[in-house]
Amino acid sequence: MSDLKKKAVVLVSGGMDSICALYEAEQSYEIVAAISFKYSSKHNRRELPFAAFHCKKLKVPHRIVPLTFFTSHFKSRLLKNGGNIPDGHYQEESMKQTVVPMRNGIMLTIGAGLAESWGAKFIIIAAHAGDHAIYPDCREAFMESMGDALSLGTYIGARLVRPFIKMTKSEIVTRGTELGVDFSKTWSCYKGSKLHCGKCGTCTERREAFILAKQDDPTEYRSVGPLPNKPTSIPVFSG
Amino acid sequence: MSDLKKKAVVLVSGGMDSICALYEAEQSYEIVAAISFKYSSKHNRRELPFAAFHCKKLKVPHRIVPLTFFTSHFKSRLLKNGGNIPDGHYQEESMKQTVVPMRNGIMLTIGAGLAESWGAKFIIIAAHAGDHAIYPDCREAFMESMGDALSLGTYIGARLVRPFIKMTKSEIVTRGTELGVDFSKTWSCYKGSKLHCGKCGTCTERREAFILAKQDDPTEYRSVGPLPNKPTSIPVFSG
Repeated sequence: MSDLKKKAVVLVSGGMDSICALYEAEQSYEIVAAISFKYSSKHNRRELPFAAFHCKKLKVPHRIVPLTFFTSHFKSRLLKNGGNIPDGHYQEESMKQTVVPMRNGIMLTIGAGLAESWGAKFIIIAAHAGDHAIYPDCREAFMESMGDALSLGTYIGARLVRPFIKMTKSEIVTRGTELGVDFSKTWSCYKGSKLHCGKCGTCTERREAFILAKQDDPTEYRSVGPLPNKPTSIPVFSG
Repeated sequence: MSDLKKKAVVLVSGGMDSICALYEAEQSYEIVAAISFKYSSKHNRRELPFAAFHCKKLKVPHRIVPLTFFTSHFKSRLLKNGGNIPDGHYQEESMKQTVVPMRNGIMLTIGAGLAESWGAKFIIIAAHAGDHAIYPDCREAFMESMGDALSLGTYIGARLVRPFIKMTKSEIVTRGTELGVDFSKTWSCYKGSKLHCGKCGTCTERREAFILAKQDDPTEYRSVGPLPNKPTSIPVFSG
């Protein structure tokens, strides 16, 4: 039966979106491997065990690719050596400091190389409609060009698949609930402490998503103070 | 004076093309860094010292990025664990076995991330007109889409620059000679032994380039037997 399914790799960080993408992909693809990256972001050690947990549950091979060069060469507050994670709303200027330049591009090209090595045509990533203008390598135009490049640059004609690209994060919560995802076993907080902080941009976004989806939020937060308002105008970021 | 120059990174393997690209770039750009990758190809240990030699000569900072995941996950005869390098002409079917899937894509996205980290807008790669139909991620259409993606996926609007894209390898030899490149301090042979073998696809191509450029070839080859003829028809590779 599984021979009839299309072969795919799924990029899985251990965050709620990518875990839902793994469950979604399982419906329609033969998942040759879920790929996680070990790259010394502050929250990487919290994410990876959840990625492993769900792969084991779904009996999907889990491959962890070490990217040792980020900490030695890249500048970003997301990384262990990069300074503090700012609190506030995800769309604020301060969150720009958490961008790891070209991170998605690097992960997608490695994913495509691995897919070609393993005979899988499809590369699945959990990019969604709420992905942020502050992250240039989350933008639609970037993803389209990168998808073309991955296809043109592989014998297999790799295809980039984004099952959630038209969905908001709260819609992903709804879909994940239908698929049976245990969200208590997913990680968002960029600070990477023992508990979700409840205050950083990613925690704010996570809390909003459950509220908007009208789903119980099983996450244990260190702080559940009032959520910050969205900025009245979304800043435009450029060069 | 250098403040007036455009800031660039150059991808430098230590091969003749990329060393010439480094000297060419030095004419028009402020080279923030030359980037080499340590990735366990058989010939990597021969290339890297030459990359370092020319960077030191030109007083260009040299950054070596370790890519430890290739040997553990990728299949290619180019890699240490991948089997023997075939002899013959570069354009033959057997050379397909030396492709490392999406290698250029991975190196370019990392180069763009580093460029953005270091405030450089330009990413220079020594792709040339003879780059081979067997390598999907050397193809023009791939490079165009990837160039768009790198630009769209960075704040700085990174620009992919290919100074040799309209030149053949023998024209690069001519240009390198004008620029004062010592070709005895460049490496091509995929086998990575102490001397260039003189027989593999890359050695064949190297020897042809000097002959066509009517330049003395300073390379010490283990074998200088007759060069193989080009295949009468270039095979078309697909999926």
